[in-house]
Amino acid sequence: MKILRINTRSRTYRFEDLGEYAGLGGRALTSRIINREVPADCHPLSAENKIVLAAGILAPTTAANSGRMSVGAKSPLTGGIKESNSGGQFANTLPKLGLLAIVLEDKPEAGSPMMDIVVRPDRVEFHDSVAAGMRTYAAQEKLLATYGKEMVTAMVGPAGEQCLSAATVQFSDPDGLPSRSAGRGGMGAVMGSKRVKAILLDSTAAQKVEYADEEGFKAARKEWVDIMRNHPVTSQGLPGFGTAVLVNVINAAGALPTKNFRFGQFAGAEKISGETLAETITKRGGKTKHGCHSGCMIQCSQVYHDKDGKYLTTGFEYETIWGFGADLMVEDLDDIAMMDRTCDEVGMDTIEMANTMAMAMEAGIINWGDGKAVIRELNKVGTDDPLGRIYGNGTAYTAKAFGVDRVPVVKNQALPAYDPRAVKAVGVTYATSPMGADHTAGYGVAQNVLKVGGDVDGHKKEGNVEISKNLQVATAAIDSLGLCLFVAFAVLDDARGVPCMAKMVETYTGKPFSVDDLIALGANCLKDELDFNRRAGFTPEDDQLPRFFQTETLPPHNVGWGYTVEELQGAKV
Amino acid sequence: MKILRINTRSRTYRFEDLGEYAGLGGRALTSRIINREVPADCHPLSAENKIVLAAGILAPTTAANSGRMSVGAKSPLTGGIKESNSGGQFANTLPKLGLLAIVLEDKPEAGSPMMDIVVRPDRVEFHDSVAAGMRTYAAQEKLLATYGKEMVTAMVGPAGEQCLSAATVQFSDPDGLPSRSAGRGGMGAVMGSKRVKAILLDSTAAQKVEYADEEGFKAARKEWVDIMRNHPVTSQGLPGFGTAVLVNVINAAGALPTKNFRFGQFAGAEKISGETLAETITKRGGKTKHGCHSGCMIQCSQVYHDKDGKYLTTGFEYETIWGFGADLMVEDLDDIAMMDRTCDEVGMDTIEMANTMAMAMEAGIINWGDGKAVIRELNKVGTDDPLGRIYGNGTAYTAKAFGVDRVPVVKNQALPAYDPRAVKAVGVTYATSPMGADHTAGYGVAQNVLKVGGDVDGHKKEGNVEISKNLQVATAAIDSLGLCLFVAFAVLDDARGVPCMAKMVETYTGKPFSVDDLIALGANCLKDELDFNRRAGFTPEDDQLPRFFQTETLPPHNVGWGYTVEELQGAKV
Repeated sequence: MKILRINTRSRTYRFEDLGEYAGLGGRALTSRIINREVPADCHPLSAENKIVLAAGILAPTTAANSGRMSVGAKSPLTGGIKESNSGGQFANTLPKLGLLAIVLEDKPEAGSPMMDIVVRPDRVEFHDSVAAGMRTYAAQEKLLATYGKEMVTAMVGPAGEQCLSAATVQFSDPDGLPSRSAGRGGMGAVMGSKRVKAILLDSTAAQKVEYADEEGFKAARKEWVDIMRNHPVTSQGLPGFGTAVLVNVINAAGALPTKNFRFGQFAGAEKISGETLAETITKRGGKTKHGCHSGCMIQCSQVYHDKDGKYLTTGFEYETIWGFGADLMVEDLDDIAMMDRTCDEVGMDTIEMANTMAMAMEAGIINWGDGKAVIRELNKVGTDDPLGRIYGNGTAYTAKAFGVDRVPVVKNQALPAYDPRAVKAVGVTYATSPMGADHTAGYGVAQNVLKVGGDVDGHKKEGNVEISKNLQVATAAIDSLGLCLFVAFAVLDDARGVPCMAKMVETYTGKPFSVDDLIALGANCLKDELDFNRRAGFTPEDDQLPRFFQTETLPPHNVGWGYTVEELQGAKV
Repeated sequence: MKILRINTRSRTYRFEDLGEYAGLGGRALTSRIINREVPADCHPLSAENKIVLAAGILAPTTAANSGRMSVGAKSPLTGGIKESNSGGQFANTLPKLGLLAIVLEDKPEAGSPMMDIVVRPDRVEFHDSVAAGMRTYAAQEKLLATYGKEMVTAMVGPAGEQCLSAATVQFSDPDGLPSRSAGRGGMGAVMGSKRVKAILLDSTAAQKVEYADEEGFKAARKEWVDIMRNHPVTSQGLPGFGTAVLVNVINAAGALPTKNFRFGQFAGAEKISGETLAETITKRGGKTKHGCHSGCMIQCSQVYHDKDGKYLTTGFEYETIWGFGADLMVEDLDDIAMMDRTCDEVGMDTIEMANTMAMAMEAGIINWGDGKAVIRELNKVGTDDPLGRIYGNGTAYTAKAFGVDRVPVVKNQALPAYDPRAVKAVGVTYATSPMGADHTAGYGVAQNVLKVGGDVDGHKKEGNVEISKNLQVATAAIDSLGLCLFVAFAVLDDARGVPCMAKMVETYTGKPFSVDDLIALGANCLKDELDFNRRAGFTPEDDQLPRFFQTETLPPHNVGWGYTVEELQGAKV
């Protein structure tokens, strides 16, 4: 495996050995490269920043659910280091070209044209983009028509071209649609600042993957499949209703943030629930099960059709439905699906944009619950409308434009779909993750609500700092292997899980790799991230929730927050 | 003397003894109140923030140049503590009502009307504002017509009403015009968030000021006047050409930031120089000498008329002329004067807005040098145009809207009119002052360029950290007495200066007050500010210039920056 380094100013490239980065992959690789090579105090949109697209350690293999993609850079949203994780076909395809990662460096002169970069096994081509300025679905059609329909893509939408902080990198899914997002932290803005519209991988050029111990790997892989099949969440809950199964669950727990985190329950929850979603999809001829990448056996995604039975969106996640639904008091699932599609089209993060729209509601630009108005406003992003530039820079930025002081962000990144007061283990993660507010960085919802991997009260402080800390390490390891985070549900409840992951690495690479090595992989990844953030000026004071969580309790259970600055530091490695 | 505390939500008030704040005034008072009473992690526009308007310790006296006003709050621009300093009649008038400071607390419900607060010696009146939404000059007319022409005012313009981070508090000058600005750090946004359009002081109600040692004070005051009269800068340079005398001086030194800090000299400098300014004013019947407050004997301000001999602006400072002139490559003094007036009208900081317009030029929205376009864009601030909301939030914010990565800010506040590479003593101040980039916090231009108070090479690192540190302490003391910063020119070169300041305090208050006490006043003020900022999450990493000053040298002398993070910490008390 090699690393492909591309200089975006000179349009030159080189294939490099892994060298000092050998043994790393996914998030561990992106965070190590950023921490080593990017000055912590550089401007995130400057030539000194880099963006790394890395597949996980297990990506070259046939391990189930190993096709997650890590995108890393200094974030224009948080000002800290960022790894943003996505599905799609990119991570599966990259190793077929003999590549574990692509690094985009330097940047072209201001005003340079956007470019398309075509990566083939033996060479890289640079073209002025055929899709500059286009929304992602139309751009994808144009790109495939131009470069070949077997191309697998990573691209930015108009938001990324404008270097807006909520901009995503969109990856093509198994159906060839640009529906999968490295959503958080403005990775699309960094890619856009380097004037890269799309990176295209020639998927026809498969290279054989060598396993050090092929039989051993097959046995481990078989056990891995068995572990997934044996857990009710990965075999039934997620495949049945998608992640939206959580709407009713989190609402019942009184932890569904509603009206910009004022309440823990939403009267309209049933209308936007996973159950309603599945029923609607079935009625209209969509798909209730769908994988974000080949090799996924959980199939938590879906294909959602509109009232006329026409494709509308896919990868329609719980967090998106929560954000555009409960948090904005919107009850119409079709409206919410259109918001999701719009975000994919413009290339912007649904969690950030949902919270952003909440700021527009606080400011009186949109009425609470007015889904049609949200769609109208979202469509301004990526256009010449300056309001679109405000929204596209996210929640805190939009709040500042309109003098709103109820701003649910940590490290400038908007909070996801679980009220931290009622699900404290994930609240601790929001506060302390080097990523900013990010549920995927340490998903304490498992122990607090789902009772997976333990049963710890999310309303009380006890035990939740420890849960968050352990999950943050485990998650960093999973992200480094390139596995889907949802494998954690099975792994947390099955003693075979963690050793099996280590075994897959060991049999593939042929180098000893123990459970301790796996934990060290995660912990060292976090240490890279914390080191970068420290040098970028972050302090324990930045590891806090906004004050209103400290001063207001959450109905219906009237739970507060209550952690001190010092207590929260316990969650950091 | 009392402190007037006003609850802006309940529209109630109380007159309080100084209590724990006795012995403080001006900046020492605002910074102590903010540090003690405002949670460092609160949102700057939330009810928990406070805004303090304080006169200096010597304000009640007849000491020359003691009429400067301090406005303090947690800054929405920097996220740290802020003292913003202004001329005008407010500081002279406040003690006549028996008040040393006014504190605005809490905030009304969203959507509440703007209010006017009329302060009389015995009572405070609250009115829904008669001037809501109005620009400051029209608002001032309306306010005086409504409440009486003897009213002295502090008000926000449309920018403050919209809570934009570059918004000023405008104070009325001796001619009754709202031309004096507490410009930096968005104090107008904080006042606007509390829905206060104007605070009006009834200047007719003079109370007699008691001196503990009236004869002693008179003697000290006389010496003070003599010190000012004896120094060429305070008696000739500043009164002759205003602060704009510096255009040619700083340009000759190769330190006049040009085209967004790319060059140190501007080909059009002569056209915007103090000499040209004075000539133009004389020709058109304006005034070349003018005081920002009664009791000013330096008279560095002026009254500038347009081509038709009609009043255009006053308080037309070097920094404004530099920013809208050299930094934007604009050569037309009338255009620059109109930009100054527009900033006063909308209530926005000229230094912040000049740098903001540089970002618009970097983004290609305005052509370099196009003064008419700058005026057009500035006029968008405070209107319904979303672009105005972008500009009104300042330099870094505007850069982010348009993906610009050459952003001259420290702690998010834009740099003033001296390139830090060529005037390192002021560069160190930009980097390390708790205020963010602020030349007035430690004006090392004195030693580096003007050769006042010493002669230290501004191109070399040696000695400049120490100069900045000492000046930062001295300045905090001067700001706390309520003296104009320009007294420092005389004081630095006259051994009688500092003892005379201490003597004025001692004879007025009747309490022993030594030179050491004066220095402690300044140092403790800084300690309050640094303590607040530390608790707000600032670190040594925040005490840096943007990286491009580190990586690029400044023509024509090709000087770099070169300080390490550690070296700069030496400038902090």
